[in-house]
Amino acid sequence: MATVERLLRRDAGRALEKILARTHPADIASLFERLEPPDRARLLDAVADDARRAEVIAHLERGLASELLGSFPPERAAQLLGRMDVDDRADVLGALPPEHSQPVLDRMGEKGEEAEGLLSYGESTAGGIMSPSVFALRRDTLVSEAIGTLQRADQVEMAFYLYVVNEFGHLVGVISLRQLVKSKATRRLEEIMIADVVSVRPDVDQEEVARIVSRYGFLAVPVVDESNRLLGVVTVDDVIDVIREEATEDILKLQGAGQELAPIDQPARAAWVRFPWLLATALGGCLAALVIAAFPKVTAILPIAAFIPVVMAVAGSVGTQAATIVVRGLQTGQLVRGALARAVVNQLGVGLLLGLVYGLLIGAFGLVRFHGPGDRPGRFVLVLVSSVCASTSLASTLGAALPVACARLNIDPAVATAPLVTTTVDLAAILIYFAVAHLLM
Amino acid sequence: MATVERLLRRDAGRALEKILARTHPADIASLFERLEPPDRARLLDAVADDARRAEVIAHLERGLASELLGSFPPERAAQLLGRMDVDDRADVLGALPPEHSQPVLDRMGEKGEEAEGLLSYGESTAGGIMSPSVFALRRDTLVSEAIGTLQRADQVEMAFYLYVVNEFGHLVGVISLRQLVKSKATRRLEEIMIADVVSVRPDVDQEEVARIVSRYGFLAVPVVDESNRLLGVVTVDDVIDVIREEATEDILKLQGAGQELAPIDQPARAAWVRFPWLLATALGGCLAALVIAAFPKVTAILPIAAFIPVVMAVAGSVGTQAATIVVRGLQTGQLVRGALARAVVNQLGVGLLLGLVYGLLIGAFGLVRFHGPGDRPGRFVLVLVSSVCASTSLASTLGAALPVACARLNIDPAVATAPLVTTTVDLAAILIYFAVAHLLM
Repeated sequence: MATVERLLRRDAGRALEKILARTHPADIASLFERLEPPDRARLLDAVADDARRAEVIAHLERGLASELLGSFPPERAAQLLGRMDVDDRADVLGALPPEHSQPVLDRMGEKGEEAEGLLSYGESTAGGIMSPSVFALRRDTLVSEAIGTLQRADQVEMAFYLYVVNEFGHLVGVISLRQLVKSKATRRLEEIMIADVVSVRPDVDQEEVARIVSRYGFLAVPVVDESNRLLGVVTVDDVIDVIREEATEDILKLQGAGQELAPIDQPARAAWVRFPWLLATALGGCLAALVIAAFPKVTAILPIAAFIPVVMAVAGSVGTQAATIVVRGLQTGQLVRGALARAVVNQLGVGLLLGLVYGLLIGAFGLVRFHGPGDRPGRFVLVLVSSVCASTSLASTLGAALPVACARLNIDPAVATAPLVTTTVDLAAILIYFAVAHLLM
Repeated sequence: MATVERLLRRDAGRALEKILARTHPADIASLFERLEPPDRARLLDAVADDARRAEVIAHLERGLASELLGSFPPERAAQLLGRMDVDDRADVLGALPPEHSQPVLDRMGEKGEEAEGLLSYGESTAGGIMSPSVFALRRDTLVSEAIGTLQRADQVEMAFYLYVVNEFGHLVGVISLRQLVKSKATRRLEEIMIADVVSVRPDVDQEEVARIVSRYGFLAVPVVDESNRLLGVVTVDDVIDVIREEATEDILKLQGAGQELAPIDQPARAAWVRFPWLLATALGGCLAALVIAAFPKVTAILPIAAFIPVVMAVAGSVGTQAATIVVRGLQTGQLVRGALARAVVNQLGVGLLLGLVYGLLIGAFGLVRFHGPGDRPGRFVLVLVSSVCASTSLASTLGAALPVACARLNIDPAVATAPLVTTTVDLAAILIYFAVAHLLM
């Protein structure tokens, strides 16, 4: 990295070209992302040829790739896009704003149409991530012919499976490349194929495709239309990208931080993405203010007010823990439909245990530090212990139950968790704390 | 699922066997996980033969697999384990308690030793997830010989790459199966191989292996020792499992909910896992109580006490958002070392913007609902606006800066985030709020 920057600055073209020739396009792409725009253009120029340049661009983060191509004249953009695999081409074209993509498409002919075909599927569906170039042969093909075809073919997406179709193009079987090589030359594909093929429709969510691939350990899943005609194939490398993206999305959603990582140099946009997620928090807080104001006598007792943060914080943390565990269990499939009620009951138990321990700890701190307000130290400690215990148990139960309820209502539990659970739990904790204090003091 | 349960209950052995014969072992395994122990034994009996039973067990969640094998006599466990792929065998053996695994190992001979070899590597390293059965041939082998060997070989892990070694067993190249089939029969492997092979050492962290595979789109990465001797291969299906596991781990850590999903029917253990993560929260809350108690006059103003929750909640949420974005950016590599300072400054900007908007909203609510305390409504609103704005900006900055600092000190930023950020932010928000209120009221 440092070397490349130095070479760029010294305008040492030849040395730079030599280094880049030995660097994987994925690594050149990540170098590229760290450079300032003028250096970027020079780096791309120093890459040996257009085929490699196209590979580098295909490895760039999509937003950056479309920004770069948008800065080229349409002819040049069309040239570079034409060198990409069709699925990458479609992805990058999809990221271009329409006023840029149309002139480029106009100049790409058939290659553009191919990509447009893919773009017609939803971005996060099997159709959107598949590659249409599949290695498929008729069922009556001989093994020797199949090997011959394979030897002549180029540019089929990572051929490790050979798909078998009937005379109508319907998918009827699959053969691993290794099985093909091991089989007698005179056998027909239909004799050696596995007829029980797992396939998906193009509108299936990419997460579902990822689940199939990782569950069965497949290297690829064929995509077929409603009459079982082979449309394309989703390969394991695309699936890995999906799993990573979805993990990021889940993490951000769970924390109420939006749904994707915004570019770091746009604070206004970043704030805008996060703004709505805070609304529930602020609303819950304002409601808590009303609750507290409804108990003026209790609030006037200094230690009661002083312990608001700790009661809220412990209940909030326990609720978030419970929600995270349930949501992640639902996502990974470790928590199955039948066991949901049990999971909620279990979280109630965990909340009770944690609440008891932390209630006692916080109560002890209250006793030692504040000696209780005036003459009723015992009651004050009782308020702390019982309200921490009650609010934590409730928080744990709510944290588990709300995502479960969302899942039942077909609302993504990850989206609902951060605003719904934290707000409900905060409010419930304050309500319990002040009600108990009002009752006992 | 429902069908299988009904058949189990009706003891309809033959019908059950028929269904199971058509079901993928991964699906039988997930059926298995949903059944009660007695039904589990009957389900396993209904599976056609030991080879398939071993496959089902290999697909089980590790804890369950070891529990099941522990319930068998050592001879039977050894039989079933002997039928598994060596990497699965090692994993399951590793999950067995030593008093169970030793007698099983004693009865397995060579197959046990093979698995023990793998177990000697750390569980989450390249060595721990690799398979030692690699398809490797000498560099001077002819293409025709290589194809012949491939045709005779069985049980090599997902052969899609052929590795090429020299006379000392050192890795010198790689050939894709497809390239092999396409090449002239009379050429030598060294003439058609790619000499520039990316390999890893057995002690490399599995996350690093996953990063290599997904970055370069490989289907497998060879594992070599310090003298470049080929030890095994990590395949893409193992990598997918790693990515999923790490995503779960990251999510749980970020939320301060432990590091792995505990079995749901052990509340005491679940509580124990989560207990330490709450300590910092409770401690921060107790410190906040001291802060509040240090301002008795301010606390006595009812609306001030009433707005403690909302000030805390908004700052806490913004801090968590910032921390999540930075931690995830670090994990995915979207946030690179050079850009860290910029990311922190950016989060300060975002925090300021969000703080300003929410400060005004909350201030407006305070004004409308409480008309300020007594005769100083203006000052009260000023306290709210300025302390929400200040605490939110600080929260956003701290949320970004603490994970960055952890990364610099080589502490896993995900682990540190939940306790460190939330606690610091809570405390800072209370401190700012009361200091500002003390100053202005």
